[in-house]
Amino acid sequence: MTTTVGAPTTFDLGPAKALSCRECGHQIPLAPEFACAECFGPLEVAYSFGQVRRADIEAGPRSIWRYRGLLPVPSDVDSHPNTQPGLTRLVRADRLAAALGLRSLWVKDDTGNPTHSFKDRVVAVALAAARQLGFKVLACPSTGNLANATAAAAARAGWESVVLIPSSLEKAKILTTAVYDGALIAVDGNYDDVNRLATELAAEHEDWAFVNVNVRPYYAEGSKTLAYEIAEQLGWRLPEQVVVPIASGAQLTKVDKGFRELGELDLVEATPYRVFGAQATGCSPVSAAYKAGHDVVQPVRPDTIARSLAIGAPADGPYVLDVVRRTNGAIEDVTDEEVVEGIRLLARTEGIFTETAGGVTVATAKKLVETGKLDPDAETVLLITGDGLKTLDAIENHIGPRATVPPSAAAVHEALGL
Amino acid sequence: MTTTVGAPTTFDLGPAKALSCRECGHQIPLAPEFACAECFGPLEVAYSFGQVRRADIEAGPRSIWRYRGLLPVPSDVDSHPNTQPGLTRLVRADRLAAALGLRSLWVKDDTGNPTHSFKDRVVAVALAAARQLGFKVLACPSTGNLANATAAAAARAGWESVVLIPSSLEKAKILTTAVYDGALIAVDGNYDDVNRLATELAAEHEDWAFVNVNVRPYYAEGSKTLAYEIAEQLGWRLPEQVVVPIASGAQLTKVDKGFRELGELDLVEATPYRVFGAQATGCSPVSAAYKAGHDVVQPVRPDTIARSLAIGAPADGPYVLDVVRRTNGAIEDVTDEEVVEGIRLLARTEGIFTETAGGVTVATAKKLVETGKLDPDAETVLLITGDGLKTLDAIENHIGPRATVPPSAAAVHEALGL
Repeated sequence: MTTTVGAPTTFDLGPAKALSCRECGHQIPLAPEFACAECFGPLEVAYSFGQVRRADIEAGPRSIWRYRGLLPVPSDVDSHPNTQPGLTRLVRADRLAAALGLRSLWVKDDTGNPTHSFKDRVVAVALAAARQLGFKVLACPSTGNLANATAAAAARAGWESVVLIPSSLEKAKILTTAVYDGALIAVDGNYDDVNRLATELAAEHEDWAFVNVNVRPYYAEGSKTLAYEIAEQLGWRLPEQVVVPIASGAQLTKVDKGFRELGELDLVEATPYRVFGAQATGCSPVSAAYKAGHDVVQPVRPDTIARSLAIGAPADGPYVLDVVRRTNGAIEDVTDEEVVEGIRLLARTEGIFTETAGGVTVATAKKLVETGKLDPDAETVLLITGDGLKTLDAIENHIGPRATVPPSAAAVHEALGL
Repeated sequence: MTTTVGAPTTFDLGPAKALSCRECGHQIPLAPEFACAECFGPLEVAYSFGQVRRADIEAGPRSIWRYRGLLPVPSDVDSHPNTQPGLTRLVRADRLAAALGLRSLWVKDDTGNPTHSFKDRVVAVALAAARQLGFKVLACPSTGNLANATAAAAARAGWESVVLIPSSLEKAKILTTAVYDGALIAVDGNYDDVNRLATELAAEHEDWAFVNVNVRPYYAEGSKTLAYEIAEQLGWRLPEQVVVPIASGAQLTKVDKGFRELGELDLVEATPYRVFGAQATGCSPVSAAYKAGHDVVQPVRPDTIARSLAIGAPADGPYVLDVVRRTNGAIEDVTDEEVVEGIRLLARTEGIFTETAGGVTVATAKKLVETGKLDPDAETVLLITGDGLKTLDAIENHIGPRATVPPSAAAVHEALGL
């Protein structure tokens, strides 16, 4: 981390100073690149941090931009219209803790973001970097949360957007993206087809920033802000355990990166922490690799209601395994039935309604406690990364009114057993 | 305002010192009452504020509880589990301003609340007061946002809840309340039937707090926090113009009350401000009364897609007329087509997706500018009180993908006219 390269760059991306290959370590100047020219490995942002002080962060904006000194964005990032995501609630979850058998539990509730998922964080960083890198159009392939976040961020900034979705997407998800009035294109094909098309278009259009393709190194850094916020909201210290859902795996690795940076910069004491990963059994390639003791992840064909986590060939899978093993964490997976029960448990105990990905996190935490992998006495944080309003279909056959009655007090009393 | 009564009270509700009749001025000690025993007028909370300083507020919680010294809640209110609503974004809306022809415009975006509407504010205050007043069950009749907020707040606090809804309610709205696992009771009848049933049950059950019925005086005070936040977020000053949607009308009157209190307490300079009201034409009894120059509001039968505003006999209608006339504001109403265009305009220009009530506010602001009632050179705030994810049905026949194409770059180019 924080390696400086000597070559001057022409792009002002704050403390970001180079792109570094995560496989071979080769460094290049900051550029709109995402793959290493030497080995085709994924590129990652390398920094040269100046002095970053708690007081400066605390005096900053009430959004992820309070951490701009730790992100690949210019110092005036917040002077451009943006969705100002982040600084979502860290909720003390005593009732959920009691239900799970944990002593001290927090929920990082990212449903409070502008489009109600953590994707607002990564898209905001991608947009800020894309502006500096000379892009003019914000784009993505997506099946849901990312489409919402990209279209909204572009609208707010006054940018054109191109969002590619499978034409089979549910109407509700189409509406929540179409409303921002960018170029929403439905593609007759599955998500793999849409993804390939995005890569092709990114190569053809120099000024189109596909947030999760050609500006992915910058985009992914946005997830570090979850770690920064957790530490600041705990009073500038690290939690002992954190449970993170795994889709591509980028979020989990960036939460780890964020915690490490805070320690290295003396913003927190570098106390030990354990990182746990959560997957749905119907798409659990990283969990399977972890349990088998493998270093590589075998792709799978997803089949789960947790569609926002349904990435069968997770790009960051090997790096997730590294983080989890290095920090003495674990990875577990849960059935779709357990996902629904996880959603309901969080709602019932804490009044927080999460999408299926959050159900995966809660249900996995439960399983990790039951199998003795999560220490019940260690302070734990669960990442709840998206909103239940986006995945109503997952619960619609499981819940409903307790009773339907005629309009009389007697009927209500009878229904309630009074 | 801020009248003290001499009688000691047994309830610790912070600066709240009495209930005062809004019609005859008769005062009673703090109690679980909502109607004046003398004249049946509505009761309102009266305060005796101590010294309230900006610095103390700024050092307080990142929620409405930073204003606990101005609300009918005990000083330790935040030590009890609650949803911690409020401190939502005040968004500088330059692109919407340009579209509307306003020089300086802000959007108060209450979609960021825990259950994504301003109802989290009023329910949180109702729950805090209800706890002090000895209630044990949180309840409400509702058709949407209030049901969500009540069920979530009760779950978080570990309280029982009883939520009454018309059995004809859309499935999505049933799910988003049922997930919190309180006693959700579907009633065969319309909203008026449900409301009457709530009043009957409130009379029978001494320990059931129907937030919008028998603890309404406390509940309604929660809307003052919108005014406090706007002023604080503007750097401790009042805006010159504010546009507020009207359902019962309580929110509009409480925004005015909040602004006045801030001036009287020297927390802001008491500069003049104008309050504007927004209704959907399909339920516009207050707008009609305003335009006709009447002091009373004739009830109507609602017929509008803006269902969260569809109160045909608004309890605070006359008080709304008072506020609007006193502050030299105005009231206007807009058609359902304009509501949809208002939703789309806000999404397109600012990346904020609001429910129909927000569409009413935006469309009304547009009409008020066009008719010369809103001063285009005066700083203006629009209240966006709920989330578009809750009223997808309102836009589903109006928007969709720009094109559906085969998975090829050429097809995308053709669809985009490139």
